[in-house]
Amino acid sequence: MNDPSHLARCAQLAMVLEVAAHPKPGNVDRDHDFPDTTFEHFLASAVGTYPVLEEAARSRTGAGALIRAAAEESLRWQRGGNTHFGAFVLLIPLLMAAGSDTPASKIVQNTTSEDAVEFYRAFSIANVRIDSVPDFDLGESNSADRIQEDGIKLFDLMRLSADHDLVANEWVSGFERTNWCADMITKKADTMSINDAIVCTFLRMLAETPDTFIRTKFGKDKSIEISERASDVIRGSRDLASIKSEVHEFDESLIREKANPGSTADIIIGGLFVALVRGLRV
Amino acid sequence: MNDPSHLARCAQLAMVLEVAAHPKPGNVDRDHDFPDTTFEHFLASAVGTYPVLEEAARSRTGAGALIRAAAEESLRWQRGGNTHFGAFVLLIPLLMAAGSDTPASKIVQNTTSEDAVEFYRAFSIANVRIDSVPDFDLGESNSADRIQEDGIKLFDLMRLSADHDLVANEWVSGFERTNWCADMITKKADTMSINDAIVCTFLRMLAETPDTFIRTKFGKDKSIEISERASDVIRGSRDLASIKSEVHEFDESLIREKANPGSTADIIIGGLFVALVRGLRV
Repeated sequence: MNDPSHLARCAQLAMVLEVAAHPKPGNVDRDHDFPDTTFEHFLASAVGTYPVLEEAARSRTGAGALIRAAAEESLRWQRGGNTHFGAFVLLIPLLMAAGSDTPASKIVQNTTSEDAVEFYRAFSIANVRIDSVPDFDLGESNSADRIQEDGIKLFDLMRLSADHDLVANEWVSGFERTNWCADMITKKADTMSINDAIVCTFLRMLAETPDTFIRTKFGKDKSIEISERASDVIRGSRDLASIKSEVHEFDESLIREKANPGSTADIIIGGLFVALVRGLRV
Repeated sequence: MNDPSHLARCAQLAMVLEVAAHPKPGNVDRDHDFPDTTFEHFLASAVGTYPVLEEAARSRTGAGALIRAAAEESLRWQRGGNTHFGAFVLLIPLLMAAGSDTPASKIVQNTTSEDAVEFYRAFSIANVRIDSVPDFDLGESNSADRIQEDGIKLFDLMRLSADHDLVANEWVSGFERTNWCADMITKKADTMSINDAIVCTFLRMLAETPDTFIRTKFGKDKSIEISERASDVIRGSRDLASIKSEVHEFDESLIREKANPGSTADIIIGGLFVALVRGLRV
């Protein structure tokens, strides 16, 4: 089903279901707000960005401008700041791919330096916390000029960030973890609620891959420690019910530590989108 | 802002925020599922009906067919049965009005017998629990023929139901309670979270107007009793925090009694839509 409106709604629903899923350790969910960013801000962002999502599903080029447009539109609909920046970086090429039957890996390889410049603009709009790309400091206003002069593509920038940013890594790796999440959510949704399928996949993903948003905030050691704790929580479990109290405890401790696995949430949104496009139904 | 896409997103967001608001006594919310209809079914229905909502915002006629299309599209996106039928009956003319600058009261007066026939079709699709309109039994397959022969407009059918159906009453009364809810939510959102503004308005509305969905299910006396209980809960309160335990208790007891104020929720959705269109921001 390549209808752009259908695809845009799959993207909206992926964002809405992800933020609703609970208990989702460390992140905003239906039971947890952050001081300045609430559950409702995420809902409004997911709903409000529809036209950009639909436009992405009609486009084969212009990923950078579409990411910028999504970041802008999100902020028009809610006052909670950055809610979905990483998710947009993942969803936009996935929407472009699903709408055009060009593989997502091809879509991202075809990006240009114009896309890279737009992406830099999107960063400053969304006010995102990231590690700078070594040679292109996002704080430096002349980076955009240098990108255009040197003909650096957005794909090249992602390659430079791939080892310390999970979302950038998806661009470079052919969306491997996104597809892994899509498969796992779909499989788990056969035997449990969609909420539990999302939470279990989130925990599994976090256990296997240290979250790079946490790494940027607290360093590599902390991100590895949190993955080990996630691994302890899910060890040997077959469903969420049997480990509910451990998951709640893990959730509360991450919230206290302000350690929110935001990159993991982005990959889950990408995976949910792929699963919904393939036919997963609530 | 009469942009049809903007209006459709306001309608989506109204449905999403309403079902998320908690604790919302008796109804599905982020903390309560019904056995066959869950929070996620409501989210998927709100997201999935976008194209019909946008089409309504581009239309001045055809309310009946749009209500039927919304009911059909909702069921394509979720397997929880009827989630938003009453909300669609309210939102469709409100969207048509907002998109065309024709007052909603005029939109509904201009409906035809074709709209009435489509509305009957929508009923059987959505499998809605209602009191039959006395002279037009919704179970009788020849009602549609009689409606067309007699030239009964959808507005006429609503007039016949206006004293025992809150949503039908809105059609006939110029959307009086919808606007009252829009004003109250907007005013309360100045001093409390959007969640609490919705819950407080819901309780106030329920206290003042017996819910007709409950009346259909359990009779008039029960619906009046529940309004009296709502009135007791909110008596003298200025915010939700001060009555949180009473509201939770009321919620749990209505859930136990299976007394869900579904018509009140529909009016809240209509009011939220109007408030969002007027500029309320999350």
